[in-house]
Amino acid sequence: MNRAALHKISYGLYIVTSGQEGKFNGQIANSIVQATSKPATLVICINRENYTHELIRQSRKFTVSILSEAAPMTFIGLFGFKSGRDVDKLKDVKTKSGVTGVPIVLDYSIGFIEAEVEGELDCGTHTVFVGRVVEADLTGEGQPMTYDYYQNVKGGKSPKTAPTFDQEAAATKPKAQSAARYVCSVCGYVYDPEKGDPDNGIAPGTGFEDIPDSWTCPVCGAEKSQFEKEN
Amino acid sequence: MNRAALHKISYGLYIVTSGQEGKFNGQIANSIVQATSKPATLVICINRENYTHELIRQSRKFTVSILSEAAPMTFIGLFGFKSGRDVDKLKDVKTKSGVTGVPIVLDYSIGFIEAEVEGELDCGTHTVFVGRVVEADLTGEGQPMTYDYYQNVKGGKSPKTAPTFDQEAAATKPKAQSAARYVCSVCGYVYDPEKGDPDNGIAPGTGFEDIPDSWTCPVCGAEKSQFEKEN
Repeated sequence: MNRAALHKISYGLYIVTSGQEGKFNGQIANSIVQATSKPATLVICINRENYTHELIRQSRKFTVSILSEAAPMTFIGLFGFKSGRDVDKLKDVKTKSGVTGVPIVLDYSIGFIEAEVEGELDCGTHTVFVGRVVEADLTGEGQPMTYDYYQNVKGGKSPKTAPTFDQEAAATKPKAQSAARYVCSVCGYVYDPEKGDPDNGIAPGTGFEDIPDSWTCPVCGAEKSQFEKEN
Repeated sequence: MNRAALHKISYGLYIVTSGQEGKFNGQIANSIVQATSKPATLVICINRENYTHELIRQSRKFTVSILSEAAPMTFIGLFGFKSGRDVDKLKDVKTKSGVTGVPIVLDYSIGFIEAEVEGELDCGTHTVFVGRVVEADLTGEGQPMTYDYYQNVKGGKSPKTAPTFDQEAAATKPKAQSAARYVCSVCGYVYDPEKGDPDNGIAPGTGFEDIPDSWTCPVCGAEKSQFEKEN
């Protein structure tokens, strides 16, 4: 089996929030599609290990915020590479309460869809939830962030809990380069000197050694010292 | 509810084939995502009215071919706007038999994924099938066709049986234009003189009245006389 074919499936990038009674969380998700039009329903795939999965199971509702291409890696990293069991991800994020009571993330999002769970299917590591759409609206300008854009323009990676995480590809060693790339030992983000980290003031062409020590991983916030040279 | 938010979900464009014992069919689908990585599973949403749905139910297997941006509208129209109950869609299409026995569509595709159904969930008009991936490979060059590209570059529409079909949007009347647009009364394809139909030799800027009478709808093959002026 050549798993590269699986990487040709197209996705967007979203924040899924859930919870009730003051206990809320959100996470990055890419496996989201509309299932039916009349009535409108959404399918989402969520890892059973994730805190958001627990909250969806309890509250039977979830909200999808559609990220724009403008979302910086730090923002995606907060929701994609940290657990809501350890940090309050929504604390410093602009949200509003939706009709279901679940917070709608407004920062870097162009629209939202609120849903109530109508069905679920056990898929091993993940659960497929089907939600009936109860409210939806546009909230911002810009192009929806696609997974392709996230990976190829932003240099983003899949966390180990994503449906699309590919262990073999993650372990593949790239070709030797003149300017060395460095890998975050926490989340797997690769600093590529060619691209730099313009979101955080590091211009393309900046060697890893020339980055200030105060710089942190744009995805998970790990310190510069936690990066290792790519072999 | 503002359904425009639902249109901000990102999709690819695929042909899903299924069947057994010499009875096969294929259809266009866009609601396809990976559900899990270990083992690899796929989620697809298929309309219960479609012949392919019947074949998946019987054979418990399906194959996804990932379309490239090069796929012309006539090809998409064959699989998206005609029923396999009326025509043999696979007759003049290049295919090969996969490990499951289901034909893999090779024309205009960059890769395929073969799956065996492991679970399903009734979603009203559609069924969500979860399939375990048994084989996958790359078969061609090019960029995967996204739904956005299909709609905005190719001028494509959703058939009434698609998860993303939007009755209200389909009925919306556009603003008056200097060069009139014409709508196919069979499939809803809109001929826009600004864009023309370059796939079929009609240059951008060609008024509808200047198109040869031999021209047919690039999506469903309807004759030019079946087009109506957009109000």
